[in-house]
Parts: sequence; C-alpha cells; structure tokens
Amino acid sequence: MLTKPTHLFDDATRVTAGDSRWQGQTSPDYWAFVGPFGGATAATVLRALIEHPERAGDPLAVTVNYCAPIVEGPFDLDVRLVKANRSTQHWSVELSQNGGEVATLATAVFAERRPSWSHQPARMPEAKPFAEIRPYPEVAASWVRQYDFRFIEGLPDFRSDAKAAPQSASSKFWIADKVARRIDHLSLMSMSDAFFARIFHARRELVPIGTVSLTTYFHLDAEDLAREDISHVLAAADAKVFHKSFGDQTGELWSPSGRLLATTTQIVYFKA
Amino acid sequence: MLTKPTHLFDDATRVTAGDSRWQGQTSPDYWAFVGPFGGATAATVLRALIEHPERAGDPLAVTVNYCAPIVEGPFDLDVRLVKANRSTQHWSVELSQNGGEVATLATAVFAERRPSWSHQPARMPEAKPFAEIRPYPEVAASWVRQYDFRFIEGLPDFRSDAKAAPQSASSKFWIADKVARRIDHLSLMSMSDAFFARIFHARRELVPIGTVSLTTYFHLDAEDLAREDISHVLAAADAKVFHKSFGDQTGELWSPSGRLLATTTQIVYFKA
Repeated sequence: MLTKPTHLFDDATRVTAGDSRWQGQTSPDYWAFVGPFGGATAATVLRALIEHPERAGDPLAVTVNYCAPIVEGPFDLDVRLVKANRSTQHWSVELSQNGGEVATLATAVFAERRPSWSHQPARMPEAKPFAEIRPYPEVAASWVRQYDFRFIEGLPDFRSDAKAAPQSASSKFWIADKVARRIDHLSLMSMSDAFFARIFHARRELVPIGTVSLTTYFHLDAEDLAREDISHVLAAADAKVFHKSFGDQTGELWSPSGRLLATTTQIVYFKA
Repeated sequence: MLTKPTHLFDDATRVTAGDSRWQGQTSPDYWAFVGPFGGATAATVLRALIEHPERAGDPLAVTVNYCAPIVEGPFDLDVRLVKANRSTQHWSVELSQNGGEVATLATAVFAERRPSWSHQPARMPEAKPFAEIRPYPEVAASWVRQYDFRFIEGLPDFRSDAKAAPQSASSKFWIADKVARRIDHLSLMSMSDAFFARIFHARRELVPIGTVSLTTYFHLDAEDLAREDISHVLAAADAKVFHKSFGDQTGELWSPSGRLLATTTQIVYFKA
C-alpha cells in the first residue's frame, strides 16, 4: 500500500496527545543558530492546541515568549484551557524539558468567528508573481532550507561594510514550504517568525539575536483559509526602533488573492 | 502635615502585596461601557509586577488577554515568575474574582537593558503642539474623562450615517492624564489601550466591541523614560482589517522629543 510521506513540517511540529501534558521534540530539519527555529516551536505549541479534544474555533491570537534556549530532544507541553466562553477560548501553554524549568510560555485565543461587516483598509504590497522571482539560495541554517524564499525587496546581503549608515530594515518576499504544503494556521504561525532579523537588514551583517516575544493574529478562519487554497504567501516586515539591545519587528502575511491572512509583531534581543 | 494627594490613576491601579497572590480592585474612575477600562486593568497587572520584590529590570513586552468581563469590586492577581535569566524575566499573571475563574491572563517580559547600537527607522508623525489643540470634550465613559485627548486626525464623529462607505480607521492625538502625571511605564501601558476602537472610526458609529488581546512593547527603560520627563505623548493608531467579528489595531506612543516610547497591537471583537 502506498502511503503519502508526511511533510517535514508536520514531522517537525508533531505532538503526542496527553491530557493536560503533551509531548513533542525538536527537529534537526528546523534548526536555527543555537536552537530550534522559533517558528517551528510556535507551530508545535499551536498544533497541540488545534489537536486538543477541547479546542473549539480557530486560532485568533497567539503570543509566544521564548524564555530560555530549547535543547535538542524531547519536551513537554503543559496545555491548559484557562477560560472558555460561548465563542472564545483562552489557552496557556508551557514548554519545558527534562522535568525542568519553562523554556517557552505561550498564550492563545481561539474563536468561532461569525459573519460580520468586513473591511480591509490595508492594501497588499505590490509584488511580481512568485513564479517570476528567483529562489533565494540555500544557506547554512537548516530551517531556511525548508522554505522557498523569493525576495522582492531586501534581498539579504549581510556581508557589506557594517560601519556604513543604517540601511532599510524592511523586506518583502514570497515564502512557500520548499516541498509544497497547503497554507494553514500552522504554516502561517511558523512563517510569521520566518523573517530574517531586522537588524541583519539594517546593519547588513549577522549579529547574535534571539526573539524574546512573538505575537501573531490570524484574520481568516480555517474555512476562509482553505478556500484560499494556496501554498505561498507574500511576507512583508519592517522595524521601528533598535535601542539598548532590543528591536521590534512588524510583519504581514498576504494571500496572492490580496487578503491579509495574518499580522505579527515581535521583540528581539540583539548584540551589536 | 501636608500630604500630596494620590493621583486617581495610581489609586485605580493600586495593588496590595502578597507572596504570589496580590489584590486589587476596580475603580469607578476608569470605567468603560461594561467593565473596567482595559488599559487600567493592564496597568494594574503591570504595577503588581513592577512592585514585586523579585522584579529585576524594566518592562519590555506585555500581553494581556481579556478572557471574561471583570465585575465591580476586588480581584486577585496570581503572579508567577516563570523563568529568570541573567538579564530577562518572564512573568505570568492571572486575574480572578471571587475565587472563581480567570478574567484576565497576562504575560510579561522584563529586561535589564544594556547600551547597544541605537537606530530608530520610524519617524514621528507630524503634529501641532499639544498646547495648540483644543481638548476633546468630556464624554460619558468615566475613563475617557481621566485623559486629556487632543485630536490631530480622526476627531471622533460617531453619529454620522453608518451606511456610508468605510472611513479612515486611523487617528492621531496627543494624550495626557487630565490631572498631570509624569509618563512612566504604567501610564504608557494604560495609554496603549486608550485609542477609541478602530471600528468606531471606520464606521463612524459606536458598536459593541471588546479588546480580546493586547500586546505592548516598551522601547525605553525607566532611566530613559525619566529623562524624557514628559506628561503627554503623541498617540497614533490604525487598523488593517475587520473580518468575521474581529479587527486589529496597531498603535504607537511618541515622546514630544521624537522618540518612540511604545508600540502596541490588539485584536478586538466587534458586533456589526
């Protein structure tokens, strides 16, 4: 019997059901400089919630606080439904390893979204089609190799003279899973952390960085998202300020149809 | 002996120290449509952390999830230091009432910020000086009366024909405590929720709304902020999308000197 092989992303974010305690493990396929790619961690947390038997509705808002490095290997997810109302649920998730301290602390809001007035003031940034742009070449970090990046603006050039005046911190690119995978809330969660650090763009060099806290809002429910039926999104990000070792990032993920799928913001530690 | 009367804001956000359990209570002075002003709740949570004996560093990122209405009266704050590193702390706070279920779930990151490369790509929006703009008249909600709003753009006009085409969702105004109070992290926390709902601007009418989740990043530490020595900030906000009963908001709080003090985003339930 032929079985369809699992997508690496689904492997990397797999969780094993418990009652309030779930298990997962890091994946070498989504590895960053010194630990798992934060987007994969966030997607793993979200997967535990989506697959939870008490879950109702779709992800609306997720905040992930990266408290400490996650080391290679298994981890526990302590999943708690803090409060449920008629149409929203509030969850808390703590990721820990070796029975030890918390490495990741997350909260999530799920909602059953009802029809309403609909209006999208934001406009999709202009972009040449995905197919017309050359893929970004492979780089060392394994998680980057899992994605097909097609830069429209802010093509990484991190080997320039770092002493030059600050450059633009903004970037714009199409992103897809390297092995095609239909966009769902899990991939949006992960892609919302798939922007290169803003400081790399602004300084045109790699410096030590680490996301401290990430918040993503989802603007389409699962039904809307399935109807888009897409495997790549337009990703745009920028930064407003870098100061005293921390900088921010704001980002948007767009469907090729022009719908805003998710907005995201994060605060990032840097050493520079 | 003459004692300086406490500012209403400090009264409204007062907490009583416990070990992990703190107490506070709602204030009629900061009341919104059906419960306490969310900004006051967020500031109360933040005050419990700032005043906590184990606190180190200054607020960097705060996320507040509004899980259920808070009723008039006292509440408990279950404050927990989830993880502390060399220079950052990760906190969790649960607000509950009458020994019952959680009404507000918050996480916060505190950091001791070190000197670093500093760069502010974002530019302060243009604005006439605070003193040259007429104060917004008093309205029914008590929390609004605690602030001095001076609109530059998006002066509220919520009684127009709601069937007209959507209007701009953006607004820009100076905001100060009505009774002058030096801007600190607590007031920035509260002011980051002091924007009128974006949908009021976009539809030019009041509809039922409720903030579901709010995230604020602070870009100055206490030392920087004290050096600004200001009592009003420039507040600018906009929305990107309203869809299936939820809309977003992005906002910025600026010092008159041109420094970006805080950035904020929230997701809001609406009925329209």
